[in-house]
Amino acid sequence: MSKLDKTARDIKTMRVRGALNIAITALKALDDVLDDEARDTKALIRKLELGGKKLKSARPTAVSLPNAVNYALLVAKENRLLSLEEFRSEMHSSLNRFIIEQEKSLEKIGAIGANLIESGDVILTHCNSDTVVTILKKAHDEGKKIKVVCTESRPRYQGLITAKELSSYGIPTILIVDSAVHLMMKKLKVDKVFVGADTVCSDGDVINKIGTSQVALCAKELDIDFIVATESIKFSFESVMGSLVLIEERDPSEVISKAKLPKVKVMNPAFDVTDSSYIDMIITEHGIMPPQAAYQLIGEKFRSRA
Amino acid sequence: MSKLDKTARDIKTMRVRGALNIAITALKALDDVLDDEARDTKALIRKLELGGKKLKSARPTAVSLPNAVNYALLVAKENRLLSLEEFRSEMHSSLNRFIIEQEKSLEKIGAIGANLIESGDVILTHCNSDTVVTILKKAHDEGKKIKVVCTESRPRYQGLITAKELSSYGIPTILIVDSAVHLMMKKLKVDKVFVGADTVCSDGDVINKIGTSQVALCAKELDIDFIVATESIKFSFESVMGSLVLIEERDPSEVISKAKLPKVKVMNPAFDVTDSSYIDMIITEHGIMPPQAAYQLIGEKFRSRA
Amino acid sequence: MSKLDKTARDIKTMRVRGALNIAITALKALDDVLDDEARDTKALIRKLELGGKKLKSARPTAVSLPNAVNYALLVAKENRLLSLEEFRSEMHSSLNRFIIEQEKSLEKIGAIGANLIESGDVILTHCNSDTVVTILKKAHDEGKKIKVVCTESRPRYQGLITAKELSSYGIPTILIVDSAVHLMMKKLKVDKVFVGADTVCSDGDVINKIGTSQVALCAKELDIDFIVATESIKFSFESVMGSLVLIEERDPSEVISKAKLPKVKVMNPAFDVTDSSYIDMIITEHGIMPPQAAYQLIGEKFRSRA
Amino acid sequence: MSKLDKTARDIKTMRVRGALNIAITALKALDDVLDDEARDTKALIRKLELGGKKLKSARPTAVSLPNAVNYALLVAKENRLLSLEEFRSEMHSSLNRFIIEQEKSLEKIGAIGANLIESGDVILTHCNSDTVVTILKKAHDEGKKIKVVCTESRPRYQGLITAKELSSYGIPTILIVDSAVHLMMKKLKVDKVFVGADTVCSDGDVINKIGTSQVALCAKELDIDFIVATESIKFSFESVMGSLVLIEERDPSEVISKAKLPKVKVMNPAFDVTDSSYIDMIITEHGIMPPQAAYQLIGEKFRSRA
Amino acid sequence: MSKLDKTARDIKTMRVRGALNIAITALKALDDVLDDEARDTKALIRKLELGGKKLKSARPTAVSLPNAVNYALLVAKENRLLSLEEFRSEMHSSLNRFIIEQEKSLEKIGAIGANLIESGDVILTHCNSDTVVTILKKAHDEGKKIKVVCTESRPRYQGLITAKELSSYGIPTILIVDSAVHLMMKKLKVDKVFVGADTVCSDGDVINKIGTSQVALCAKELDIDFIVATESIKFSFESVMGSLVLIEERDPSEVISKAKLPKVKVMNPAFDVTDSSYIDMIITEHGIMPPQAAYQLIGEKFRSRA
Amino acid sequence: MSKLDKTARDIKTMRVRGALNIAITALKALDDVLDDEARDTKALIRKLELGGKKLKSARPTAVSLPNAVNYALLVAKENRLLSLEEFRSEMHSSLNRFIIEQEKSLEKIGAIGANLIESGDVILTHCNSDTVVTILKKAHDEGKKIKVVCTESRPRYQGLITAKELSSYGIPTILIVDSAVHLMMKKLKVDKVFVGADTVCSDGDVINKIGTSQVALCAKELDIDFIVATESIKFSFESVMGSLVLIEERDPSEVISKAKLPKVKVMNPAFDVTDSSYIDMIITEHGIMPPQAAYQLIGEKFRSRA
Repeated sequence: MSKLDKTARDIKTMRVRGALNIAITALKALDDVLDDEARDTKALIRKLELGGKKLKSARPTAVSLPNAVNYALLVAKENRLLSLEEFRSEMHSSLNRFIIEQEKSLEKIGAIGANLIESGDVILTHCNSDTVVTILKKAHDEGKKIKVVCTESRPRYQGLITAKELSSYGIPTILIVDSAVHLMMKKLKVDKVFVGADTVCSDGDVINKIGTSQVALCAKELDIDFIVATESIKFSFESVMGSLVLIEERDPSEVISKAKLPKVKVMNPAFDVTDSSYIDMIITEHGIMPPQAAYQLIGEKFRSRA
Repeated sequence: MSKLDKTARDIKTMRVRGALNIAITALKALDDVLDDEARDTKALIRKLELGGKKLKSARPTAVSLPNAVNYALLVAKENRLLSLEEFRSEMHSSLNRFIIEQEKSLEKIGAIGANLIESGDVILTHCNSDTVVTILKKAHDEGKKIKVVCTESRPRYQGLITAKELSSYGIPTILIVDSAVHLMMKKLKVDKVFVGADTVCSDGDVINKIGTSQVALCAKELDIDFIVATESIKFSFESVMGSLVLIEERDPSEVISKAKLPKVKVMNPAFDVTDSSYIDMIITEHGIMPPQAAYQLIGEKFRSRA
Repeated sequence: MSKLDKTARDIKTMRVRGALNIAITALKALDDVLDDEARDTKALIRKLELGGKKLKSARPTAVSLPNAVNYALLVAKENRLLSLEEFRSEMHSSLNRFIIEQEKSLEKIGAIGANLIESGDVILTHCNSDTVVTILKKAHDEGKKIKVVCTESRPRYQGLITAKELSSYGIPTILIVDSAVHLMMKKLKVDKVFVGADTVCSDGDVINKIGTSQVALCAKELDIDFIVATESIKFSFESVMGSLVLIEERDPSEVISKAKLPKVKVMNPAFDVTDSSYIDMIITEHGIMPPQAAYQLIGEKFRSRA
Repeated sequence: MSKLDKTARDIKTMRVRGALNIAITALKALDDVLDDEARDTKALIRKLELGGKKLKSARPTAVSLPNAVNYALLVAKENRLLSLEEFRSEMHSSLNRFIIEQEKSLEKIGAIGANLIESGDVILTHCNSDTVVTILKKAHDEGKKIKVVCTESRPRYQGLITAKELSSYGIPTILIVDSAVHLMMKKLKVDKVFVGADTVCSDGDVINKIGTSQVALCAKELDIDFIVATESIKFSFESVMGSLVLIEERDPSEVISKAKLPKVKVMNPAFDVTDSSYIDMIITEHGIMPPQAAYQLIGEKFRSRA
Repeated sequence: MSKLDKTARDIKTMRVRGALNIAITALKALDDVLDDEARDTKALIRKLELGGKKLKSARPTAVSLPNAVNYALLVAKENRLLSLEEFRSEMHSSLNRFIIEQEKSLEKIGAIGANLIESGDVILTHCNSDTVVTILKKAHDEGKKIKVVCTESRPRYQGLITAKELSSYGIPTILIVDSAVHLMMKKLKVDKVFVGADTVCSDGDVINKIGTSQVALCAKELDIDFIVATESIKFSFESVMGSLVLIEERDPSEVISKAKLPKVKVMNPAFDVTDSSYIDMIITEHGIMPPQAAYQLIGEKFRSRA
Repeated sequence: MSKLDKTARDIKTMRVRGALNIAITALKALDDVLDDEARDTKALIRKLELGGKKLKSARPTAVSLPNAVNYALLVAKENRLLSLEEFRSEMHSSLNRFIIEQEKSLEKIGAIGANLIESGDVILTHCNSDTVVTILKKAHDEGKKIKVVCTESRPRYQGLITAKELSSYGIPTILIVDSAVHLMMKKLKVDKVFVGADTVCSDGDVINKIGTSQVALCAKELDIDFIVATESIKFSFESVMGSLVLIEERDPSEVISKAKLPKVKVMNPAFDVTDSSYIDMIITEHGIMPPQAAYQLIGEKFRSRA
């Protein structure tokens, strides 16, 4: 079994998880393919394409996977006129640069996001997002006095993780139930909302943890900046082609045990979609952009014809 | 100790609870005052005024209490020119009519609200409201096929009571977390939202269980009728004079135990305010009205100069 | 067969038509009942109530019918303590005053509406409304230079009647298709929209000819005053109790003959509902009011307990 | 020359000015008419009607003048069945009660408005309004810590009067140019806007100093309560009948002297109209109401058929 | 007469019609120019520029014409350093690729658009659009159960063509008058609106058949996705330079014959402009994008400096 | 002292002012660096980078300065593989082309903007903007009949400069106070608003003279096109990285002398931020674009990795 096959299997069986991790692992597998024997550049590119196809099919719903593969194939295409050796060398360095870029993206987003925060800001966040936590810690490190309001984020209470992490770090933290968002935004005079993203679509809509779209609605009504922070690897190439995003329905027992309400149907959707018109800006490792620029970023980075 | 003093004490110590119950008990106490000895009508009215004052001060925040007292004093004033005996007789019958009206108000609201429901409707409700449950059961009794979506209503899960009650009654019931309102309104094609009210202000704003204002916001964006159903005894006479409604902050342990997140401040507001512009109509026992008619209803029923 | 029975039959068979006409005819029939023999006032009131019931059931969907009957019963109740002769005399004069008031309402609305028009105004109207035509002619008679934009109002082209009537009267008139409303409002710099009403609901919503609600939507976006002009007899007493208004579906052949598109289902609703938040004011013979005052007007004029 | 004729002349020549003052002076003149000789009550009412007509025509644009006269005639009509002496006595006491009510209205508005203010509030006001200044001083007297932002209110800088008055009183006061409203609302986290009114129309629209409508627009976008405080004597009876309010155009030299910009046309409108949908509530001496209740208040207090 | 001159004449006389067809014919004419004799590459490019200028001036208002010409000149410029033979060969293959791309664009849009449709969807369309019909048929072919609502699209009834085409194809189809859009969107629970485009401007606004902008307004209010489907050849290069789009005014007799309403002025605009903020996404053969990405697409594909 | 050092000093001491002027001066200084001695291309690029850094730090808040420097470094990077002589030559011509482009940008914006104006337009502008004045004069030169409304733009009255300039040029000009914007937009039926910009952010927000954001708000409510006209050199590269724009607070004495209101705090912010959702389009020398395309334009022109 080739390394690429193993990687594909690991992604399929979810041994490899997390958008960034999946992208990096897939790129490393393609990097290995570069060392395969090949008659010429064209033949090697063909091998990359086959490998890419295999990887993509391992988890068709993982948004970062086709992005990583497409990126590699796009670079390959640009270098298709090079000799085999030049091609190998150029590709190795391109892929490694890209991997490092991914690994540094979280840190970059932290720095850019923290720039947007002023001392005295009251910030609300929903659920538990790596990028948001990184931004808030960075702002705190820079000596800015901030206060953070966390929703508990039913049914899985991921907001408690955020609250614990930030309060342990020394940031004044307030926890509220999900229903108190609208009132508390007013009462605590919230200045900004920061959330992460699961997927960014090509029309600028953002898919994120259930409840995000109504936090955005409240922020809009109260003229509070609603800011999404996410690595560009989560921008959905597939959405350009109109593939509908399926909102995962999770086990009802996360909400309440069946025994307690035997006759009631419990529904438990995991994500919702926030329309681009409710989002003030998206922060990626490439900087701050309006949500409508998603189409452009996807085109520049990930649109492979392969 | 006079019966009125006992009633005042019972209201103060919360032995008597619930908006309707408080109002009815207070009126009965004033009804007893009518049988007190008095030189003339004027003197008896003076006794009523003193009794009313005592009752009102028993629980200054109960919205139905001043309404009930003011109603009695308003009627007394209108009959001030009658002889003592005529006055007693007229007052007894007026107060009893009013008490019966209160007792029947829930049933009337049920009938009017059910008129608004069509077979096939998907209805969302938040928290647990007597008026809403009565309306939904009445519609079900009339053979209308409805489906009801209940929010769990964190932190106290009153939505589970609603879900249990409706599903036991044979109504198809769906339970969701508070964060899923926006998504589920779209996904399940919700037709109408019904909620109760704790207090209706003179400018048409409605105070109700925390989360109500963001359910209203979602309904507005999706063009879903947002309907408040409540007895008119909950319209706030005091709000005409600008008394600010204090949003009660409940024990943080309702949200999470202190031990689990020792460094986090937990806030737990019990109610929020829904602006009149988000409310399509209010149902009371007097029929359907726009929220802005609250000022008129309060003026007609409860504005006493005493 | 009594005169009242004949009237009821004529209303049922639609020999008597038109909101105003129905109201006036019903009142005249009740006026006749006053001359029936009766032991005392109470007995005569009972006869009025029975007659009223019979009349109301003749056409349950005619909004002006219960209004007229309720008005008469309300006045009867107020005069219940009079002697039989005094009662007859007071009722005769009250009913006649009310009938005259109805007959003059169109003229009054014309005068009030014309007051709102300024020389130079460009006015848009939809469908064909007596009140609106009266207002526009009155403004023209007063020497105001106006221009009127009429929609053709498919499928029945009632807008052509309006256009013909106004242009014959010497008013510069422009006809457009229903789809051109939004553009033409901008291009012609429309100042005000006037429409009539079929029914005004107790929460301020207005039911009128299909297309009215989207004209209102366009006017709102462009900040153009949207004004409804209608006799108060069309305010729906029934809507206070939550009766749902059924939107009449008319014959598809009004749109296109079945033969031309045999496989297509044609739908042809006759009315739509304009939400109160899109209406700037309603003109009745009692003056200018916000739509939310509908609840009050219905209560004052038509709410009988009989 | 009768006292009433003198009063009419004084109102005409603007020796008597100010909405409240005009109303009170007119009522006193009608009170004097009551002592004129008359054959019977009917004859005296006729004299009152003639006097009222004369007074109204003295300044047709003063909104409080017809209100005061109509009030008197309405009361006269209600008492038309009394004997001449009883009529005189009842009218004297009614008119005096009304005059006292007017004189106390400012104080009452101050108390009600101050109830709406919380310690810590940042309040913005535009132009110079007696009612608003009274409210702010009352809140300050009650020990509430407030900060007030005053616009300069070009071209006549009435905002400077407000700023001077409040700052002398010890209230922290901030002055800004009219263009800075939107930004400063955000920067200073303004909680509430209070403005006065020149006229309140029957559909709830409010006419006030130029610039008011755009302050309201900014407040709406930022979800800041926009509150109008005004005596009920300024509600326009005439607006019920559709009389168009003429926006006064003042001398361009208030803006800049002609010499400085000889070729430029300077326009200088004194008032603008704020739509009812931008107003959260109106405070009068009768309490807090939604703007849509204006129609009701005008009807109850001032609608005379005379 | 050269082939290019003939093509220019055919475009001018409208023998060649339709956005796509014009573009393809123009490109073929330029492709022929490539075989003209020329001293060197520079001279050949000069000939292409002259030919392009001639073609563009044949129909200055056809949006696809300058796009096609600019595309060719842009590619020419990029290859300006090649030898004459290399240039010819590269240009031939580029132009042919582009022509094929255009020919396949309709099919691609069909596939992408169908991806957005779910089984059970109720879809509304206005007028008659090739792209929309293709999308709907594709979705139907894929086995999705859809229902389509067609407006009749007065005055020329193009909606009937759409209705006929779809119903013949076996798709359940409903026809309504243009005024019934708002009501029917609610009544039939419309899920998505699809329309074509005549022109897409660089700021994202879309010009399409009269009535489109008010369909969009209704969709916005009801939170229904409003989707434009169009070939990228219809994106207006000229709009980048601010050329105002002239809304064509067609013959009034399309609306009604002059004889029937001799004194009425009939206006009959053919198109209107839908603001980008009302459009959720645009589908082109390049995928799904927000309307604001129009500027980018025009820049990349068509912005020639020639 | 090198020429670059002198330039840096002149920028620092504000001897060189104005966005365009600063950009051009900086580019000329870098152009001189090209003639410095250097071992090879790499070494010369290093010198350019050092020079660029020095220039940028001269006035860190001048938005056009980093843009000019980044542009030069971006071009340098693209040509890094050329020989020293080729590099020098290519750079000289690139920089000179860019300088000329800047110098011609005002004229180009004038032409594009004038294309958007139609004869008969009433245009409102705020403050004093070179680009807007150029556009208006150009439209006037083209024979279009326009009328221009200028706000006085307190506290510094720059609107008077605009009014004087336009009226002297023969354009009918109207001056109003800043508070009259909302009313006058309606009364004069304003068609378009044109304003300049101080800075355009990467998310499409525009920073401009205080008052701009509320003019935009009024325009939005009244559906009037709000158009920003500005050279692309004012697009903020720094905003991509989240640097917060500091709104300059100017001397309070610009508003009123301290002596006149000794106890009043006067605040005098110079700029405000207009949200991208209030802006219909931005005109630059590159054409018309939606505000959201700012991110793209900054990326293409100014994003240097140096």
